Amino acid sequence: MTGLLPHIGSLASGPRDAITDVAGVTVGHHTLADGDVQTGVTVVRPHAGDAYRDKVPAAAVVLNGFGKSVGLVQVAELGVLETPIALTNTFSVPAVAQAQIRQCIVANPGCGRELPTVNPLVFECNDGYLNDIQRMAVEERHYLQAHDACGVDVEQGAVGAGRGMSCFGLKGGIGSASRRVDGGHTVGALVLANFGKLPQLVVAGQPVGRQLAARADGSDSGAEKGSIILLLATDAPLDARQLRRLALRAGAGLARTGSVFGHGSGDIALAFSTAYTVPHLPQRPMPAVAMLHEARMDALFQAAADSCEQAIVHALWHAVPVTGRDGHRRDALADLLGGWPSLQGPTA
Amino acid sequence: MTGLLPHIGSLASGPRDAITDVAGVTVGHHTLADGDVQTGVTVVRPHAGDAYRDKVPAAAVVLNGFGKSVGLVQVAELGVLETPIALTNTFSVPAVAQAQIRQCIVANPGCGRELPTVNPLVFECNDGYLNDIQRMAVEERHYLQAHDACGVDVEQGAVGAGRGMSCFGLKGGIGSASRRVDGGHTVGALVLANFGKLPQLVVAGQPVGRQLAARADGSDSGAEKGSIILLLATDAPLDARQLRRLALRAGAGLARTGSVFGHGSGDIALAFSTAYTVPHLPQRPMPAVAMLHEARMDALFQAAADSCEQAIVHALWHAVPVTGRDGHRRDALADLLGGWPSLQGPTA
Amino acid sequence: MTGLLPHIGSLASGPRDAITDVAGVTVGHHTLADGDVQTGVTVVRPHAGDAYRDKVPAAAVVLNGFGKSVGLVQVAELGVLETPIALTNTFSVPAVAQAQIRQCIVANPGCGRELPTVNPLVFECNDGYLNDIQRMAVEERHYLQAHDACGVDVEQGAVGAGRGMSCFGLKGGIGSASRRVDGGHTVGALVLANFGKLPQLVVAGQPVGRQLAARADGSDSGAEKGSIILLLATDAPLDARQLRRLALRAGAGLARTGSVFGHGSGDIALAFSTAYTVPHLPQRPMPAVAMLHEARMDALFQAAADSCEQAIVHALWHAVPVTGRDGHRRDALADLLGGWPSLQGPTA
Amino acid sequence: MTGLLPHIGSLASGPRDAITDVAGVTVGHHTLADGDVQTGVTVVRPHAGDAYRDKVPAAAVVLNGFGKSVGLVQVAELGVLETPIALTNTFSVPAVAQAQIRQCIVANPGCGRELPTVNPLVFECNDGYLNDIQRMAVEERHYLQAHDACGVDVEQGAVGAGRGMSCFGLKGGIGSASRRVDGGHTVGALVLANFGKLPQLVVAGQPVGRQLAARADGSDSGAEKGSIILLLATDAPLDARQLRRLALRAGAGLARTGSVFGHGSGDIALAFSTAYTVPHLPQRPMPAVAMLHEARMDALFQAAADSCEQAIVHALWHAVPVTGRDGHRRDALADLLGGWPSLQGPTA
Repeated sequence: MTGLLPHIGSLASGPRDAITDVAGVTVGHHTLADGDVQTGVTVVRPHAGDAYRDKVPAAAVVLNGFGKSVGLVQVAELGVLETPIALTNTFSVPAVAQAQIRQCIVANPGCGRELPTVNPLVFECNDGYLNDIQRMAVEERHYLQAHDACGVDVEQGAVGAGRGMSCFGLKGGIGSASRRVDGGHTVGALVLANFGKLPQLVVAGQPVGRQLAARADGSDSGAEKGSIILLLATDAPLDARQLRRLALRAGAGLARTGSVFGHGSGDIALAFSTAYTVPHLPQRPMPAVAMLHEARMDALFQAAADSCEQAIVHALWHAVPVTGRDGHRRDALADLLGGWPSLQGPTA
Repeated sequence: MTGLLPHIGSLASGPRDAITDVAGVTVGHHTLADGDVQTGVTVVRPHAGDAYRDKVPAAAVVLNGFGKSVGLVQVAELGVLETPIALTNTFSVPAVAQAQIRQCIVANPGCGRELPTVNPLVFECNDGYLNDIQRMAVEERHYLQAHDACGVDVEQGAVGAGRGMSCFGLKGGIGSASRRVDGGHTVGALVLANFGKLPQLVVAGQPVGRQLAARADGSDSGAEKGSIILLLATDAPLDARQLRRLALRAGAGLARTGSVFGHGSGDIALAFSTAYTVPHLPQRPMPAVAMLHEARMDALFQAAADSCEQAIVHALWHAVPVTGRDGHRRDALADLLGGWPSLQGPTA
Repeated sequence: MTGLLPHIGSLASGPRDAITDVAGVTVGHHTLADGDVQTGVTVVRPHAGDAYRDKVPAAAVVLNGFGKSVGLVQVAELGVLETPIALTNTFSVPAVAQAQIRQCIVANPGCGRELPTVNPLVFECNDGYLNDIQRMAVEERHYLQAHDACGVDVEQGAVGAGRGMSCFGLKGGIGSASRRVDGGHTVGALVLANFGKLPQLVVAGQPVGRQLAARADGSDSGAEKGSIILLLATDAPLDARQLRRLALRAGAGLARTGSVFGHGSGDIALAFSTAYTVPHLPQRPMPAVAMLHEARMDALFQAAADSCEQAIVHALWHAVPVTGRDGHRRDALADLLGGWPSLQGPTA
Repeated sequence: MTGLLPHIGSLASGPRDAITDVAGVTVGHHTLADGDVQTGVTVVRPHAGDAYRDKVPAAAVVLNGFGKSVGLVQVAELGVLETPIALTNTFSVPAVAQAQIRQCIVANPGCGRELPTVNPLVFECNDGYLNDIQRMAVEERHYLQAHDACGVDVEQGAVGAGRGMSCFGLKGGIGSASRRVDGGHTVGALVLANFGKLPQLVVAGQPVGRQLAARADGSDSGAEKGSIILLLATDAPLDARQLRRLALRAGAGLARTGSVFGHGSGDIALAFSTAYTVPHLPQRPMPAVAMLHEARMDALFQAAADSCEQAIVHALWHAVPVTGRDGHRRDALADLLGGWPSLQGPTA
């Protein structure tokens, strides 16, 4: 049925149509799904090594800052990641941050003593509609389990941090996609999609949400209290300033799905490059990198917007229905649509 | 034929569907159209008074900073405008800035002496494809003529600063629109649209550009060197921080038309409120304003995105074909389409 | 001996020369001092009520972002605090953030369900020289104990979060001060001082550090891995944009003590106003506030810089010597100097 | 008498103690001094070539944005300069920007046509106390004359753009300095100093202004309406993000002279590196540069702060008294002090 999914834009996908098409990037989930607890952790590793010792160039853009993600102050200053990227629910950020600190100490016993402290990087959305977020069910070990599960196959939909997320009043969660550009570079996206109200939903230009809302009873009329996290990976050699430019284009893809970056939504994009790493200690040599010429960024910008839009569609498409806290339930877009042929947009 | 234009979104327009639906706002143009000179000046006045003495709360967002607009440093610091807003071509910014300085001195003889200097606010796009921009044809008096022409009727398309602008490889220029929200507030948009490549163009969700490009000979294959300026006015009582939030949503509307905020495009949005003014001198009392509660911003965000998307469509729709420098020519979208009914999107 | 302390600048202090001279502000500490554990928590409450229901206007400036403080993304977007401000060591941020979340849930059972989630606001410095930071000795209850200890008397030096902090190679920690300006407003500062190398230290313009370093054996030659958090409170009616301007002036006071905002130092300033609060729910009316005219900010800027410089001097002056992890020891400036008269600067 | 000037900090100066100690950097002035016209233009060239074709990495920090400098939007986005840096008075910015545009067109006839437009970079301060700024006496040719006068010898004080500037109620203007750091890199500073009120002035830690103000009649009691531009050059290989960090440290040096970044002062710092250039066209290869490791930045930060403080002292020291508009006069610090030995600070 995947063949019926609309393909966003004219750029080709990588072989997995996932963020792991950027070589070295892996993704893992740990899912908690038990009655009122519908939540989890997702981890994205930029490379197989220790991110504290070999830091990854990165930059973030806050499209709307109603959010509680941690780690962005240091990313902005130093232009690097130094942990894997973790995603979870809002109230589990402290547990996951603590897990990242301990993981770094185990691997680097001088961390916080003769070596600098480590900067946890944890993004979040509020899954409180389906998940009893006040229970703070995520524990430090769940982060480690997601970390250990990292691989190139990306499970999507209601898994990991996406387990309890809602999107456009439907079941949301994890989505991923990738695009290739001339010159051989790849851009990959992974989103944690938990935003929007049903009437806003646009799929490949089609006002699908308005059509579905007309059929529905319109019971979900509250203000948006969601969020979306958009992660972009690329193998193009970009510095932090260029990565910030790339991250902003996630917003273009997001907007095309109907979002106006709602007030109550923490909409944050982060982009990183796998083309080089920065050594932790100054005793090791800095890499001599020829960055991509600025005039070659346009193709990457298109790939970033397209892969993010596609990843959001994937999050909706792969999500299974979930019933959680107090019997709250989110339906799956795929079930409601009964397949994409009803759309008149371009299909893959 | 306007009745066939697609209406973007579900919010109603104001009576003029233009930025001047925000009470007090006026717009004026001065157009230069003579052979290789196809350019001009557009002025937006936030109120009928002296903006230096009664400053208007404002904030800007730079979506992509490949641009030469002036005045944004001070707007960011102080959160106010203190001149009318001027639009022109890139190389005419100095002449128009000079005109604004002189205009302020005439009205306020102490300006730069016992009173502070004035902050010119001039936005620009590069109309060099149709206009001989190196000629710097705009003179200070042309700014004054546009200023004196300000009124509530907004001419759109290839007029004023929009005279020489290109958009998606077609004739672009000035567009405007407005949306009303529950609670009685209005958001109005005015754009100077000079961005994008034809295959990117999306109108009301339809990939119109791809369809048109398939018909065309594809001769316009260069990189984007355009820009778009997006101005938002509202009568809602917002402070500068809230106006910055509003301005960012212009980017959502822009993205829906197919833009990915291209590298070579100076994409800048500015929002201002007409709900109150800030006195120049501290001897006069500051207004005691109850700002809009943050949770009520969502409706304004939707209005900002929708009115900007609509304004871009209007800029394309109202543009007449123009032939300019070295015989370069841009066609009009309306001519190419022969009317909107070919679109299957929602129509007004 | 306090009478011999240099008084910074020409503005008068408030009665306590502490942040609590701003009416309504209270400060509390919980100190852990046992062998290798030399750390703690400090809490600053902007008012006696629930900060989630009655939010406090605030803004932050990152002077150097090598830091792991949490909560700044939302402060930047919404311009308000919604918890007390907590200070602790770097690796205890998660525990304290979790404590703030739970505290908010207890007081507001709908938090994260029908009400939005809460934004923890925790600042940190690395006290790893004196404190075994890897032990993560701070627990959630310690935050609550610091919170419950809040009052108008501000203990300074090696207390609360300041227990294990080092500053200019000496014992640092918590310092506070205040200044009054014409018009009747007060600016108060509280710092967590953990930055700098001894030769850099300047007190009231005197190169005290160079003089002391010449006497010492120069053993502390490592790179700076410290931080400073600078909190400013004022009763002047300022909006978030104006508070950001005020916060930046903390950097002027910091620089005068010899800091160049070192690479390894997380230097963050946050300013808040007690002049009004913003209701959590839109059903309650927004306050109609006449903000301070911009031209009246200069006096506040001077007060912010002076009170921050004074607070840093106070942190050094009030600190007692501490011996901690692995027998590491920091001496007290007061002991080394044997009183201020050796300085030729102005004295109070 | 220079030997009596205090030397700021413990780092050594370069041979000229000027920004031109950074190899390749040159400075030129054109001064207008005739009755009520006391103003001019100063140009800093980062290298001898065409900055449009070989762009220079750069970044700016706005310490206080009450200013009208142009060009910063694009510098922030693209991280490069593409013209020489020009300094002038506030109302002459348009004339100088126009001169830069024309200069670029002459050298690059495709500019604005098949090549992108050029980004003028003009900084300003308001010299309206001594200079009849409303006369807009600076013409395009004056920029070219300053440009053609560029060399390695830097005249300081009341010259070029500094001709009419006031600083701490005294005669200000152009100052420059440099510092060398371990590893062989140099940081150079050039300031246009036009800020501060006399009682604030601190020289090498000494409250010189308070002492002088006690002697004076205190007639200059108005609010600050000045500005300071701080330019930093270095031969260290830094990218734009690192240069932004460096530029911020100009604020530390500025603060030590007594500034609190006053409300009415446009305080802007820009740093650039001469270690490499970025080609205009993507057809030319990008340089493969190993940037300086972040942990090595501290020495540069110290050099930036110290050289900026020194440059401000130099601006005051080298200034001659000037009488200008309406007989307004600014005295020279050197005359008032009668030499530095009265200061008890460290001397060179």
